[in-house]
Amino acid sequence: MSFFDLILGKPLATSAEHDEHISVAAGIPIFGLDGLTSAAYGPEQAMYLLIPLGMAGVQQHLLPIFAAILCLLVVLYFSYRQTIEAYPNGGGSFTVATENLGNGAGLLAASALMIDYILTAAVGISAGVTALVSAWPSLHPHQLLLCLLVLAIIVIINLRGMKESAFVFMVPTFLFVGTLGTTVLVGVVHALLAGGHPVPVTPPPPPSPIMETLTFWLLLKAFASGCAAMTGVEAVSNGVPAFKEPRSKKANAALTIIIAMLIVLLAGLSYVAKAYGVTAMDPDTAGHAYQSVLSIQVAAVFGRGWFYFLTMGSVLAALSFSANTAFADFPRMARSIAMKDYLPHVFLLRGRRLLFSHGIYALTGFTALLLIIFDGVTDKLIPLYAIGAFLAFTLSQAGMVRHWLHNRDQKGWRTKLFLNGLGATATGVTLLVVLVAKFTAGAWITALLVPMIILLMLAVKRHYRRVKLETADPTPLRLTGLEPPIVVIPMARWDKIGEKALRFGMLMGDMVKVVHIHDEEGDTITAVWDKMVLAPILEANRVEPELVTVQSTYRTIISPLMDYILKLEDENPGRKVAVLLPELVVRHWWENFLHNQRVQILKLLLLLKGNQRIVVVNIPWYL
Amino acid sequence: MSFFDLILGKPLATSAEHDEHISVAAGIPIFGLDGLTSAAYGPEQAMYLLIPLGMAGVQQHLLPIFAAILCLLVVLYFSYRQTIEAYPNGGGSFTVATENLGNGAGLLAASALMIDYILTAAVGISAGVTALVSAWPSLHPHQLLLCLLVLAIIVIINLRGMKESAFVFMVPTFLFVGTLGTTVLVGVVHALLAGGHPVPVTPPPPPSPIMETLTFWLLLKAFASGCAAMTGVEAVSNGVPAFKEPRSKKANAALTIIIAMLIVLLAGLSYVAKAYGVTAMDPDTAGHAYQSVLSIQVAAVFGRGWFYFLTMGSVLAALSFSANTAFADFPRMARSIAMKDYLPHVFLLRGRRLLFSHGIYALTGFTALLLIIFDGVTDKLIPLYAIGAFLAFTLSQAGMVRHWLHNRDQKGWRTKLFLNGLGATATGVTLLVVLVAKFTAGAWITALLVPMIILLMLAVKRHYRRVKLETADPTPLRLTGLEPPIVVIPMARWDKIGEKALRFGMLMGDMVKVVHIHDEEGDTITAVWDKMVLAPILEANRVEPELVTVQSTYRTIISPLMDYILKLEDENPGRKVAVLLPELVVRHWWENFLHNQRVQILKLLLLLKGNQRIVVVNIPWYL
Repeated sequence: MSFFDLILGKPLATSAEHDEHISVAAGIPIFGLDGLTSAAYGPEQAMYLLIPLGMAGVQQHLLPIFAAILCLLVVLYFSYRQTIEAYPNGGGSFTVATENLGNGAGLLAASALMIDYILTAAVGISAGVTALVSAWPSLHPHQLLLCLLVLAIIVIINLRGMKESAFVFMVPTFLFVGTLGTTVLVGVVHALLAGGHPVPVTPPPPPSPIMETLTFWLLLKAFASGCAAMTGVEAVSNGVPAFKEPRSKKANAALTIIIAMLIVLLAGLSYVAKAYGVTAMDPDTAGHAYQSVLSIQVAAVFGRGWFYFLTMGSVLAALSFSANTAFADFPRMARSIAMKDYLPHVFLLRGRRLLFSHGIYALTGFTALLLIIFDGVTDKLIPLYAIGAFLAFTLSQAGMVRHWLHNRDQKGWRTKLFLNGLGATATGVTLLVVLVAKFTAGAWITALLVPMIILLMLAVKRHYRRVKLETADPTPLRLTGLEPPIVVIPMARWDKIGEKALRFGMLMGDMVKVVHIHDEEGDTITAVWDKMVLAPILEANRVEPELVTVQSTYRTIISPLMDYILKLEDENPGRKVAVLLPELVVRHWWENFLHNQRVQILKLLLLLKGNQRIVVVNIPWYL
Repeated sequence: MSFFDLILGKPLATSAEHDEHISVAAGIPIFGLDGLTSAAYGPEQAMYLLIPLGMAGVQQHLLPIFAAILCLLVVLYFSYRQTIEAYPNGGGSFTVATENLGNGAGLLAASALMIDYILTAAVGISAGVTALVSAWPSLHPHQLLLCLLVLAIIVIINLRGMKESAFVFMVPTFLFVGTLGTTVLVGVVHALLAGGHPVPVTPPPPPSPIMETLTFWLLLKAFASGCAAMTGVEAVSNGVPAFKEPRSKKANAALTIIIAMLIVLLAGLSYVAKAYGVTAMDPDTAGHAYQSVLSIQVAAVFGRGWFYFLTMGSVLAALSFSANTAFADFPRMARSIAMKDYLPHVFLLRGRRLLFSHGIYALTGFTALLLIIFDGVTDKLIPLYAIGAFLAFTLSQAGMVRHWLHNRDQKGWRTKLFLNGLGATATGVTLLVVLVAKFTAGAWITALLVPMIILLMLAVKRHYRRVKLETADPTPLRLTGLEPPIVVIPMARWDKIGEKALRFGMLMGDMVKVVHIHDEEGDTITAVWDKMVLAPILEANRVEPELVTVQSTYRTIISPLMDYILKLEDENPGRKVAVLLPELVVRHWWENFLHNQRVQILKLLLLLKGNQRIVVVNIPWYL
């Protein structure tokens, strides 16, 4: 078994595709990890903004804010159920928007989602590693290395294939849901038994003093921040083709389970926070005493025992691996876009394990780049990435609205239209809120990047269209003008390599020019030409090749040769010129340093400066 | 005028070589800068070791040590005069040792000198920049950048040609000799007027207390360190062909002037040090108060006025540019070695300004590498580099001894034999002293590197010999077995690119195989083959090309294609196989990302896995 096989698994035949399809249980870690882990940071994001309102602010406003977020989530759930049913071959925002709203909307959604997936991957990994580094500060100098290590693990698991990655990520996913679910359950039971005021095992830190009064703007910002908890919802609809038949059913089952778990976690955690009087801490002022809201909550319910550490550990693992959702979805989306010629066609190719490997490579590259640029600390990127998701949501829902309007013959289209319309309106409004609330914090970067990527995709499309137009040949083979080419053979000396080239050249045509470039010290071929070449040719009564000697004033070989070839081509309109380049093939790579690489340069120059009539023939000589 | 012409000067015709030859005055900065600047650090190197002996130690032992060094220098001078006369085409150690002592000795000298030149360049530049940074500490963070900048300046000046570099380096050279010469003159006159005990203008810092007693070993070490002042002597003998006719005479005149100036400076500076009671300071203990011996001496003679700063500035400039000697000599030496096939043949090529540019590139690369590895601080390398020079000196002198023994008919051969014998003995003994005294300080690295480089050169020679043997063709052109090749054309679809390849293929032979690799979705060519290809061919009554379709189980294109080609070649022994690769040539480099680079990979694979019978034909298609 080769090294590659060991790391990435044996190659899979195309016919094995069926076996790679996944079950509902496997779909949950693959397409749900990103969505589910947002339960770990969504509430914190919202509560952070409520800090200046003190305890009373949290008590009063946390539940309403999360009620709004959960309502939006439910609307999104029903909307996406319908998308999945309507698009069993993958209903990503790009596909839905393109088919129903036209190319412009599709590109907008594609561009937004591409940015979003890259950010998800980078932010997920660095959030997980940051949590790890907070727990073991001695790891701090290695933050970037750890991030890249986690990235490498995710990439290798993904390159092994869908099924194997589901298997690997199942444990952290269910551990995450299990421990947080237990916390919610025990917390809620305690709270109910204590009449809404349970006694925390480890008391939460005291709330900050009230420093601001409530404004509508603050509530909006808290809502917008909390919406980060929803960014993973689109994943399943994009991944429908990965499920076993009946695809739509299985995908919808996975979506239902994911959303249900997310709702339970979000609702439960907000309730527990309120009941136990938990408020967020400001990491800037709390310094070393800082704890995340989740950590305070778990400690309040269970104290800092083994369960606390198990929970925090599983949160950490799940967060680090939440990047996996991006790896599951990005390649499929890139493929959809490439199918319409808006991205390079390599994204269409299936790799050795039947995945769209080039999408994985591209995502890996961009993620690594972000991690390296930000030295593994990508906090500042969080504001950038809800926008892409909500833009895509809105376009996808709006597309579905058009879809139902065009398919009025379908049963229940009115209800479906209403649901998707509600979804589109809700996500559209949320998009505006998020954009305004986070514009100065970095959302403007997304707003700039989106049109730039669209322009890039348009340029790609234009290129493919031109190539297709220029090379398409609807006519049968033309057999006119089939004249043998003029053969040019550069020759430095008479040796076996030159002889091989000359023999091959004489097969190609009768007009053979052997070109010898020499410096002032005189040429070395004329002296042997008659004896070595002309004599046997005259004897065999064949057409003589012409020896052309050129003196190079400036000791260059390539430029006089290029001049000669281009002049020859110019003087013989309509005829092809075949340049035969004898090439020494060495046994070891380092031996290349011992021979000048003129042939390589010449090949490149002939390609760049040549034209349709110049053809390069490599005559290899093996040592 | 192009950018290149502006920076590097216009290309020179080969016939212009005569004009590039230099005069005696130009030879002094080019081949003498390295030797002359050693007057700036040689005495310091020796005096540093005398610190523990206190003032008395310096007073007693400085002059004897330098007397010994100067004697050695005089012996070397006469030896090299003879070498220059005997080898008017360049008498570098490699040439002299090879011709008289055999290949082994030549390679030993070559290897030692190559190491030495690279070290000279790196150490020279970093010494100059270190002096600059001591004067302006705010430049300290940019040390490496400054080193690379100086390197770039030296390289550009050198690439413009011998003559121009002489012109540029003349000013710092004569300023260096002028200011230090004036210091010596004024110091000596003052000392003589004051009866040997002049009053310093700025008193030297007090000497260290006596901490050690004198040992012979200490004196030997001081002598070995002081010998660093001699490393530049070989340069002129290597550069004889660069001088105007009569070459040997001009080169010897340059050598005489360089050595005379060096002797005056070394003797004068030692005498001034003794007369003014100057001792060296230990930079480790002196800290910020540290001054070099040279700085103390100039201040003692002139005080810290404008002349002090002019002198120190010119020392700094000369030191930085002393690397230039390596750049003048290394390429000539590399050429001599490459002429005997021990180094890559690129070193034989003359660049646009008639220089051996590749030697300059190689030296630049190694110097930059050393500077980058050591972050611009190459102090630790100083012990490594006298060994190479003295090994080369010894071999060169020993070679001359053999030379005179074989040429006993020449006038005065006995005197010459004696002089070179004396030189060989003296430098041989010095080599041993230096090797022992500096072995643990780093000389062992040189002792390891020298045999490694020799092995490398032997491998290069072996390679060239094999190539020559395998490709040499003393027989006339064979015209037997001239059978047209089997033509293989990989085709993905029927388009203009494929048509062009097919038309060209039909010119090359009648046995044309169009290979179409497809996946399970079915092939796209069979359907159009009859109409697009066969119909016109049947009509024209030509031989039909064969369509070969291969289904690829693992979606790869390249490996089934390679399998097919290799099998075809195997089944048709004695026949050539021409693989026609249609290649799309795009207008902008970035467009390459939009097309998979299979053709490139295929070309590479065919070259690597192919054999003498497989020929690759590139059919370019220009968009």
